[in-house]
Amino acid sequence: MPSSRIVSQKPLRIGIAGLGTVGGGIVRILQKHGALIADRACRPIKIVAVSGRSRTKKRSINLTKYKWFNDPVAMAHDPDIDVIVEVIGGAGGVAKKLVETALANGKAVATANKALMAHHGYELAKLAEKHDTALMYEASVAGGIPIIKVLREGFAGNDIQAVFGILNGTCNYILTEMRSSGRDFKDVLKEAQAKGYAEANPAMDIEGTDTAHKICILGALAFGVKPDMAHLPVSGIGHLTAADMTHAEELGFKVKLLGIARRGNDGRIVQMVEPCLVATGSTIGAVDGVYNAVLTEGDFVGDNLLVGRGAGEGPTASAVVADLIDYALGFKTPVFGVTTPNMKKAKRMDPGEMVGHFYLHLSVKDKPGVLAEIAAIMRDHKISIEAVLQRGHNPGKPVSIVMMSHKARRADMEAATAEISNLASVAGKPCLMRIESF
Amino acid sequence: MPSSRIVSQKPLRIGIAGLGTVGGGIVRILQKHGALIADRACRPIKIVAVSGRSRTKKRSINLTKYKWFNDPVAMAHDPDIDVIVEVIGGAGGVAKKLVETALANGKAVATANKALMAHHGYELAKLAEKHDTALMYEASVAGGIPIIKVLREGFAGNDIQAVFGILNGTCNYILTEMRSSGRDFKDVLKEAQAKGYAEANPAMDIEGTDTAHKICILGALAFGVKPDMAHLPVSGIGHLTAADMTHAEELGFKVKLLGIARRGNDGRIVQMVEPCLVATGSTIGAVDGVYNAVLTEGDFVGDNLLVGRGAGEGPTASAVVADLIDYALGFKTPVFGVTTPNMKKAKRMDPGEMVGHFYLHLSVKDKPGVLAEIAAIMRDHKISIEAVLQRGHNPGKPVSIVMMSHKARRADMEAATAEISNLASVAGKPCLMRIESF
Repeated sequence: MPSSRIVSQKPLRIGIAGLGTVGGGIVRILQKHGALIADRACRPIKIVAVSGRSRTKKRSINLTKYKWFNDPVAMAHDPDIDVIVEVIGGAGGVAKKLVETALANGKAVATANKALMAHHGYELAKLAEKHDTALMYEASVAGGIPIIKVLREGFAGNDIQAVFGILNGTCNYILTEMRSSGRDFKDVLKEAQAKGYAEANPAMDIEGTDTAHKICILGALAFGVKPDMAHLPVSGIGHLTAADMTHAEELGFKVKLLGIARRGNDGRIVQMVEPCLVATGSTIGAVDGVYNAVLTEGDFVGDNLLVGRGAGEGPTASAVVADLIDYALGFKTPVFGVTTPNMKKAKRMDPGEMVGHFYLHLSVKDKPGVLAEIAAIMRDHKISIEAVLQRGHNPGKPVSIVMMSHKARRADMEAATAEISNLASVAGKPCLMRIESF
Repeated sequence: MPSSRIVSQKPLRIGIAGLGTVGGGIVRILQKHGALIADRACRPIKIVAVSGRSRTKKRSINLTKYKWFNDPVAMAHDPDIDVIVEVIGGAGGVAKKLVETALANGKAVATANKALMAHHGYELAKLAEKHDTALMYEASVAGGIPIIKVLREGFAGNDIQAVFGILNGTCNYILTEMRSSGRDFKDVLKEAQAKGYAEANPAMDIEGTDTAHKICILGALAFGVKPDMAHLPVSGIGHLTAADMTHAEELGFKVKLLGIARRGNDGRIVQMVEPCLVATGSTIGAVDGVYNAVLTEGDFVGDNLLVGRGAGEGPTASAVVADLIDYALGFKTPVFGVTTPNMKKAKRMDPGEMVGHFYLHLSVKDKPGVLAEIAAIMRDHKISIEAVLQRGHNPGKPVSIVMMSHKARRADMEAATAEISNLASVAGKPCLMRIESF
């Protein structure tokens, strides 16, 4: 490629803040593939500085050639650095200060920080525009799956109607294991922690917050709206039982924790995180274990699915390096697909207005008339039932009733469920899940 | 996004050559989404000229505002055009002349022409470099799936080991229907033609040539080698029977026509097109009907799968428009991921050296000793058998034997099959397929 269109053939100089798993992976890729990356980027990409918690910590990567900063924010003032890589994490604190400082100094930023982008992405995008630099965040969503690039560039000719998917590998691993082994949530979580698939404090993953950050970013990009965590209802997977997995399977479904961003024909947007049922034979239904999957719907391109590893050193570092190569080639896109003056305040749809098929699992006393009571409540809320599973016979003791509804409004379904849960014959908390069809 | 980094805020001026399905789709997208695209591209993208076979043909799109060219090559000389969109098709002829002329005049080119890129991509890339312009071809492979962008940019930090997949929707539709309906190839092909899923002359699709063009391009991009149709063995799907679908299903597989590009640890590359068996429960196994799917393997990012619509007006036009938006934003990458001086001559591996599990379907006379004869030949070629299906009892008449091998060299498997097909007790042509595992 002739030089005239390339911003520079001088090396692109990188400072990496954060030397954990992802930071280490980025160093490893740039060291291993230096020549290949220089060919692809039409210039070398050179690490010049790093910053981590401890300089003396034993590491499997060689950092001796790089300038060391104890304070990452100080690194963002170094005039010999073109791009700051932020892989520290956290919605505020030093990560935020670092990114702000780098952008204010006209340096580009590549970050893997989903919490930061979800909570402060709009202000940071404005800052990047003000200082005419780039804010890149491919690694913040779905690890190695290049969903940011695909949505922002690959589908740029489309009005995007929906983006949703499996965005947390820990949850998908746990749900997959619960299904295949018949074990309950807590048991499988422990195993996942032992295997390193779940963190010691798994709350961010299993309560859905991590997925919420990601779908918040994807929705902003897909619809050109400000990322808004305040209007994103979230439920996690901690309440699900092995029985739910089995019942779903019998009905032809698997349970997946989905992050969902949809825009209706009237332009209103709904964004949420919730466990849903997806058809076992569908492509997303085949995505098990630690894999992530993202589905998109565009008005011309139709529906697309991307599947890959959503976390881990290699995939996440690969995403950061892709951002660096784009930048080295002189590519810079508006942060959320359009510039901030063109971003819109979203018109939100109440999730209660969503229409779909629902799965309802009840634990009821095995005595005559229970099903009649439940069916009457459903009828009163104008919900018609597509399938019922009732198993076993256990007089006076709890048995399971599983129902699948025809199309119904979520609000109606929730109201009916609340009423049903108050019946004397219903024990425990009902489990209500939407069936995601696509 | 401030203007300084954008090449220009003047409209990007487009000339479209070819007003068939895809050309019409491009016009439709640019007309419908003009404002949205201007936001995303940070400048308007304006059609200024078009060229088609007949000016007077009745069309559902309004072309009255655009300059008309009877000769597309003349359009490539128009100084008021920045980018030529080539959607005429064909490896040579006017399409090639048009692209060459446009590049030689310093105009960028966006093409959907897989035959042209597979046969002449290297020379055209050199021409684009010489004249410091862009040659874009996202639409040439897998329609709406942005696999060119994903491989070239999304996974640019990786050494790519493999890219393969379902690249022809016509074949996938036919194979899906054969499986679900139990009907034979010819019957389903006729139906596909009636439905518009197969062309009147379906040879390019069903013989595998279309898939070969696509995997030729993907291999070149993945490995940084010259596209080379001369070293790409191709087999199609016309010889497959409904029985093959049934047998595969019983063994837990589906039959898919795959384009395959792999690089071994020794750096040697194999590229080919052949029907393969893939596990029914795998994600690619769930890709049915007219959908395409592309799997990639990178050393850091791991394996990824992309699924979407591989053809049709909307998806293909969406891919062309994505290229136009990239170019409008000032993005230009080396055509095959690296510049032509950095492209390598591929070291090729003989497909016979490929190792895998194989499926073999034989029609044999139902008499004692046949299986022993066959098993002896397999043993002599050092092939061990993992599973055998033999059905029914039809003394003196043909019955089916289906075998699945353990890991074996393709050359050994082919030699054994040739020998087996010469047995007096074997009727008709054996059907040998590799099992693609990933």
